[in-house]
Amino acid sequence: MPKIVDHDLRREQLAASACEAIAEFGLDKVKLVKIARAAGFTTGALTHYFPDKDTLLLAALRFAMKSTSARIEQRLSAYPKDYFLALCEALPIHPVATRESLVWYYFWLRSLSDPTVRKAQAADHAAWLDQVKTCIAGLSERSSHFSNQKMEAEDLIAFINGITIRAILEPKAWPARRQIASLRRHLIRAGLDGKASSRTSKRQAVQS
Amino acid sequence: MPKIVDHDLRREQLAASACEAIAEFGLDKVKLVKIARAAGFTTGALTHYFPDKDTLLLAALRFAMKSTSARIEQRLSAYPKDYFLALCEALPIHPVATRESLVWYYFWLRSLSDPTVRKAQAADHAAWLDQVKTCIAGLSERSSHFSNQKMEAEDLIAFINGITIRAILEPKAWPARRQIASLRRHLIRAGLDGKASSRTSKRQAVQS
Repeated sequence: MPKIVDHDLRREQLAASACEAIAEFGLDKVKLVKIARAAGFTTGALTHYFPDKDTLLLAALRFAMKSTSARIEQRLSAYPKDYFLALCEALPIHPVATRESLVWYYFWLRSLSDPTVRKAQAADHAAWLDQVKTCIAGLSERSSHFSNQKMEAEDLIAFINGITIRAILEPKAWPARRQIASLRRHLIRAGLDGKASSRTSKRQAVQS
Repeated sequence: MPKIVDHDLRREQLAASACEAIAEFGLDKVKLVKIARAAGFTTGALTHYFPDKDTLLLAALRFAMKSTSARIEQRLSAYPKDYFLALCEALPIHPVATRESLVWYYFWLRSLSDPTVRKAQAADHAAWLDQVKTCIAGLSERSSHFSNQKMEAEDLIAFINGITIRAILEPKAWPARRQIASLRRHLIRAGLDGKASSRTSKRQAVQS
């Protein structure tokens, strides 16, 4: 029987290893040999799965995106309707999320000079926007009345990106609880307080 | 008479030229020869003002920071008390501001691996935080009653950074008016509506 599943798994392992290496060394300094070694491969075996370095690095970006997205889905499975908790998983509040934030971050800059990365990121952003819109809709039944739900989601993504940068640059000034407090304040002020269960209490939270 | 002023001016011209080159080519690909030529110097003459590339690049970061800060001050001189208009100058809403945002952005990443850049950025951030706090205080006399004015300023900086990233990555989706609208919404929701002139009208703006 052909080992189809194993090949997919190995590709995933290598993408995960590349993700770790990018976060540690940066996109310009990351070395194929270190990625291969960390995943238990030789550089030669690695090329069986990825034809060149750029393809592997792009797989790392996709891995980071999929991993963040999966954590948010897992949160929503474990704690249904806790959309706030789910959104927190997009912030660098623990080592895995921090690593993925760093990978996103490095690729943002790379996309300015690389059309292939730009295209991959545009697709990732569209998927991420959909996920954020779902969370916003879940956080308030009033959200359908917003003049522009997409605009609200885009602003929220901008704020998450902004916190991410500050937290990556100054981790001591931006511990997890600080990031979470800022996100909550933004959502409450936008009328998206996931803690309130009735329309009335939500309105109170916004006005308080 | 020694040409002391000229030397300072030339240093400034070279820093400005480096700022433009970084925005165009990125921090890793920028070439000394191009910076020198754009400023009307030879590479040899350039080394008279900056001992090495890193010193010049760091001067470009300082130039970007000073230039943004000066634009904000100029706005406040021309339109006293229009702190909202002043804060908009920190967003990439026109070519000069976009160039400076890009320079900041490139150095954010660089600071992760370069302690000298990290130190320079920490100083810049402290100055920038003071300027934002002044704007926040100006936007609302209520601001002194905020539980944590520094926190409000840090959140505002995070939001400005987040908009900057989105606007740099997707300029078509984030034209100036979109960025300005997002900034205004953030400020209004924070109770910092610069347009209102009395306490009562401000309160109305926040609650509407």
